[in-house]
Amino acid sequence: MGSFFGQLFRISTFGESHGGAVGVVVEGCPPGFEISLDEIQAELDRRKPGQSKIVTARGEPDTAEIVSGVFEGKSIGTPICIVVRNKDARASDYERWKDIYRPSHADYTYDAKYGIRNWSGGGRASARETIGRVAAGAIAKRILKERLGVEVISWVSRVQNIEARIDGGSVTLADVESNIVRCPDQTVAEKMIELIKGVKSQGDSVGGTVDCVARGVPAGLGDPVFDKLEADLAKAMLSLPASKAFEIGSGMEGTYLKGSEHNDRFVNKNGQVGTTTNRSGGVQGGISNGETIHLRIGFKPVATILMPQQTVNNRGEETELLPRGRHDPCVLPRAVPMVEAMVALVLCDHYLRQLAIRPEGAPLTAWPLSTA
Amino acid sequence: MGSFFGQLFRISTFGESHGGAVGVVVEGCPPGFEISLDEIQAELDRRKPGQSKIVTARGEPDTAEIVSGVFEGKSIGTPICIVVRNKDARASDYERWKDIYRPSHADYTYDAKYGIRNWSGGGRASARETIGRVAAGAIAKRILKERLGVEVISWVSRVQNIEARIDGGSVTLADVESNIVRCPDQTVAEKMIELIKGVKSQGDSVGGTVDCVARGVPAGLGDPVFDKLEADLAKAMLSLPASKAFEIGSGMEGTYLKGSEHNDRFVNKNGQVGTTTNRSGGVQGGISNGETIHLRIGFKPVATILMPQQTVNNRGEETELLPRGRHDPCVLPRAVPMVEAMVALVLCDHYLRQLAIRPEGAPLTAWPLSTA
Amino acid sequence: MGSFFGQLFRISTFGESHGGAVGVVVEGCPPGFEISLDEIQAELDRRKPGQSKIVTARGEPDTAEIVSGVFEGKSIGTPICIVVRNKDARASDYERWKDIYRPSHADYTYDAKYGIRNWSGGGRASARETIGRVAAGAIAKRILKERLGVEVISWVSRVQNIEARIDGGSVTLADVESNIVRCPDQTVAEKMIELIKGVKSQGDSVGGTVDCVARGVPAGLGDPVFDKLEADLAKAMLSLPASKAFEIGSGMEGTYLKGSEHNDRFVNKNGQVGTTTNRSGGVQGGISNGETIHLRIGFKPVATILMPQQTVNNRGEETELLPRGRHDPCVLPRAVPMVEAMVALVLCDHYLRQLAIRPEGAPLTAWPLSTA
Amino acid sequence: MGSFFGQLFRISTFGESHGGAVGVVVEGCPPGFEISLDEIQAELDRRKPGQSKIVTARGEPDTAEIVSGVFEGKSIGTPICIVVRNKDARASDYERWKDIYRPSHADYTYDAKYGIRNWSGGGRASARETIGRVAAGAIAKRILKERLGVEVISWVSRVQNIEARIDGGSVTLADVESNIVRCPDQTVAEKMIELIKGVKSQGDSVGGTVDCVARGVPAGLGDPVFDKLEADLAKAMLSLPASKAFEIGSGMEGTYLKGSEHNDRFVNKNGQVGTTTNRSGGVQGGISNGETIHLRIGFKPVATILMPQQTVNNRGEETELLPRGRHDPCVLPRAVPMVEAMVALVLCDHYLRQLAIRPEGAPLTAWPLSTA
Repeated sequence: MGSFFGQLFRISTFGESHGGAVGVVVEGCPPGFEISLDEIQAELDRRKPGQSKIVTARGEPDTAEIVSGVFEGKSIGTPICIVVRNKDARASDYERWKDIYRPSHADYTYDAKYGIRNWSGGGRASARETIGRVAAGAIAKRILKERLGVEVISWVSRVQNIEARIDGGSVTLADVESNIVRCPDQTVAEKMIELIKGVKSQGDSVGGTVDCVARGVPAGLGDPVFDKLEADLAKAMLSLPASKAFEIGSGMEGTYLKGSEHNDRFVNKNGQVGTTTNRSGGVQGGISNGETIHLRIGFKPVATILMPQQTVNNRGEETELLPRGRHDPCVLPRAVPMVEAMVALVLCDHYLRQLAIRPEGAPLTAWPLSTA
Repeated sequence: MGSFFGQLFRISTFGESHGGAVGVVVEGCPPGFEISLDEIQAELDRRKPGQSKIVTARGEPDTAEIVSGVFEGKSIGTPICIVVRNKDARASDYERWKDIYRPSHADYTYDAKYGIRNWSGGGRASARETIGRVAAGAIAKRILKERLGVEVISWVSRVQNIEARIDGGSVTLADVESNIVRCPDQTVAEKMIELIKGVKSQGDSVGGTVDCVARGVPAGLGDPVFDKLEADLAKAMLSLPASKAFEIGSGMEGTYLKGSEHNDRFVNKNGQVGTTTNRSGGVQGGISNGETIHLRIGFKPVATILMPQQTVNNRGEETELLPRGRHDPCVLPRAVPMVEAMVALVLCDHYLRQLAIRPEGAPLTAWPLSTA
Repeated sequence: MGSFFGQLFRISTFGESHGGAVGVVVEGCPPGFEISLDEIQAELDRRKPGQSKIVTARGEPDTAEIVSGVFEGKSIGTPICIVVRNKDARASDYERWKDIYRPSHADYTYDAKYGIRNWSGGGRASARETIGRVAAGAIAKRILKERLGVEVISWVSRVQNIEARIDGGSVTLADVESNIVRCPDQTVAEKMIELIKGVKSQGDSVGGTVDCVARGVPAGLGDPVFDKLEADLAKAMLSLPASKAFEIGSGMEGTYLKGSEHNDRFVNKNGQVGTTTNRSGGVQGGISNGETIHLRIGFKPVATILMPQQTVNNRGEETELLPRGRHDPCVLPRAVPMVEAMVALVLCDHYLRQLAIRPEGAPLTAWPLSTA
Repeated sequence: MGSFFGQLFRISTFGESHGGAVGVVVEGCPPGFEISLDEIQAELDRRKPGQSKIVTARGEPDTAEIVSGVFEGKSIGTPICIVVRNKDARASDYERWKDIYRPSHADYTYDAKYGIRNWSGGGRASARETIGRVAAGAIAKRILKERLGVEVISWVSRVQNIEARIDGGSVTLADVESNIVRCPDQTVAEKMIELIKGVKSQGDSVGGTVDCVARGVPAGLGDPVFDKLEADLAKAMLSLPASKAFEIGSGMEGTYLKGSEHNDRFVNKNGQVGTTTNRSGGVQGGISNGETIHLRIGFKPVATILMPQQTVNNRGEETELLPRGRHDPCVLPRAVPMVEAMVALVLCDHYLRQLAIRPEGAPLTAWPLSTA
């Protein structure tokens, strides 16, 4: 059951890194939306390998094909299936490791769970699985933009100890895409790129953080008590490969403050209720409050490194893993579109859920003032 | 749909803080388990208000009644409904605030979402809602213990800037329960208690972190790609009131390391695959690896403070919120049983899910060595 | 997982016939609806035992209590929990049968599934479980009526071989409630009552059919391909105790016709698309077409009879079941409110699902003419 | 949400009749099973058009491709995606009807629901959608056979008024496949074939019934109170195109009997509890009792007929639909594999659900005798 995500705007991904194809089925997409293959492909291109010298060299075009759910360029309310064929699969690179458990990879746990696994590459645990998420996210982004004017923008905020302080209220997609590491601060970006190059040359890897904001989200999205907006966002982020931490709003920093310092004061912003500060990160009691949603994800350094490592095989025998093949020294630049996609999927799902409890025809923003 | 949690071991909570009752329906509890009302009550007592001088004084016995699903002391496979009546409800304390949006509370967002709310207390957003979770968690804990020998133990690891370093491998429930702040390190605990008392006397509040370990979890639990164990744990934690951050294993700290420093080396531990270090936090690729699961949750300072605050009412008018009534200066001590309960619920759900994909009669630990 | 029903308007029932209580949690009820305890109680009274001389004499007031989700008489968007205490439980009546499998009852299958069961009465398999459904159905009916003007009316159309031909387009609730067997045709109703009395005096039981119509359902409800409206209705009906058959529209009769005889011709009915005949039963391709939804359910004769029966006990030993206690000679009159409730729940769920895929603010009836 | 079916063994179908492809994603398939493309193709060939002179002549090879979830011929526990390309799509046949609502088709209701539809063929409402179900069903059948020895066999029991009485206890697949109408009684089959040919020559269509048995199903499958086995079976059957009626066990006939005539007497069958008669149809209280599960589905005559019909277009204007193209005079022969597939999917899902509530390692048949 673990390959389904969302309740009303629901996606189901399929595919292994070296199987025939990876893809996604999107269910619940409202009818009548223009579904642009170009938009979807553009997002996949931001995610794909080989796009720059600081990511893995695996040569995959990641070309998307829409096989259902779209007619004359528009969604028709039926499941949208998008398929991406695996091209540059080098099973041979992996055959030597078929019995070996690579440290901090999922080889062992997949065996422990299923008793069998596709050892030719990361299989289902590979980041290739996220192709389906990114494709579906492109559709969700469009719906959010058209229907609500919502913008979802993500960027690399820290690589190891090189950090950038970015204003989530004004950052643009252009800023993010202006360099290969996807950090809107050019000066910091260059330092990050140098760091990653150095680490790559050592055959090592680094981690860091990705930030994401969603601007223009109307108040009222989120479904207490278990499907709180931050809860679904946290699940979405921790479902991404290599993620180890999640923060919303003031996050861990906020836990050092006192209530009198942390509370966000309410004010009237042109007839809408707003807050002067945003330590809540745009969510209160699990529901969006109309302010910018701001979250942060911590990604560990990639497990694949080009150094010899001691480990065991599937018979429990000690052995040495000899490095080989291609690797990503740092997942962060490619994680950016994945994060945006997952955030958009969560918001789109909760937007549809909110429509379902509103009086027919009532605008999402009718409450609360109009009912006061 | 937001009041359901879990797939196979599924709970559904109901109730507002000042409504007639709060409670839970537990579905999917395997039949034949001894369901001990005493065990359930004991967990509720760890959560209940008025238990010590550093928590709110609201006088609630929080007495649980099991109204279904149990026969002659045992589960029978049908839904177990547990009801707890609200006793000490003082709507009058809240009437003056019925139109006012308390800063960093959910008053405004509930209005924004529903256009109506139970203003007599926190309503559904109150921590009283977690009573149902804690009651259900007591059952989940028992199943995990009886079936798998799993122990779930949580503690307060930091209050504002007062931190305790605890060994998750050896900490015991007795250590945790040895003081009212639920920090296993007595010396640090006293400092925490002093801090909270001081903050309380100022009518202010503080936040901090809670750690939780699950020991003895067999390898194989977790359901990639969306229901990864850490993803479901993150959702569970962020669904708790006042939580703002989640970390598993090395968490944010780990994002400063290189892959060569972060990877956990595999070794043979008496015929089972294990790791020498545990930066993965007991989870790899979304599936438990048999090592101790270790996570951390950041809780913000409670929004309720006994100081005047500027805010607006539901007509958008600026107004001042005058403090009044009872409050929790720090949620952490009472959050401990909530965290344990949610972790137990997630593990129990994934345990049942794992049973469903195993060959009939195959032990959970049969793989992978036996199939090598 | 089997005690949940519905996706957006979702109910979860709990309770055994002789446990502490039975009840329901309703999730997804839109906020701001008047929730009338009287309306709910009125429906429960139509279902309750002891209401006439042709049903079981078990004396249960079936008094409903709303313990959550309602504030100042209105729904607030949170789970509505309704509890009904079991009063007239005579476990002693059943103790003698605790090891015996009553023919065509669920005693054996519950043991086979769970290995344990509440033998004091029908337990979870008792029709008392439907109390929660009927209570929730009362809320669903109100929403359908207020929001869409939909009427759901059910009646007893046949008892064994005594049949009534009723016009589903004009039948009223008053007609149905005008006699204790709930057949709108008074003459036929009297024959049915006589038949049931006769059967009861012999300690035997009879079955028959219940018809149900939903009038005023807008076109567009139903979710192909698996959650077709007729599919969800069929599931709802077959989930009722003693049901063995389901028909929609022309049902089995229609399978004897040719396509040229069966097709419903489309015409323009005051600007709306309608049909001249209604063999489709108001549903085409799994979606409502605006015509009256008409379905029929076949109920077998109740398994409880006051005659000695040969059977086996839980050790597989042949034994004789000696009759004792109270019994319902015919479930049909009490099944009427159950059927209405389940139909209302299905329609209400699909109404909310339809809202979720509509453009914000678009009326349900905007399509298709307005977009032509 | 309507394109998902099942809880643990869950399928999600996608595709329109004239879109790029149709297919299915199977989630929850236990790992380690041999997945035979030949077996899957064989089932698709039983369903495909053009297979005989009494079905539509549309020339579709319906060739299946497995693109994920299988490694070295075995399931690996990840989603299995199967894709079938549409080849013989003649949109031109349909262009003339793009604005016209064909009587008793889903053209109008799809417009009413979605405001847009793929008019080039039946779109999502076409029976081509069932390709995904049949492919997934082939996998479910194999699991049921290997794990439990269950056989699922379906046949055409009646075409209009030509009926065959078949013994569900002994009928074989070979009997069913011995003629093109799939009725095990050769003499009756010939009459059916003649009837269909005659109807086809008139450009008309006929309906009838399909019966299905599942033999060897262990006691204990089914999940009261809403996911009763017969409830899920009824939903599965009514989700098939053109189905209008469902019966289990004695069905409608049984509603004419008295309880004393209808009850199935329990006896000891070689240490297992069994019944002398099977009016319950293998299910009691929503749970399988170990006897043969027997159900019947009524299919209306196909809506597509080659005769002129009066109807309206999407502007509400009266118009005449002129016949054209290919059509199925009778869906029954092709419905047989669809019915088997859906029954297998329901049983496989409930088998996995049952595993989840059993003590680890306990055989499905351990209860009740062993615990008595």
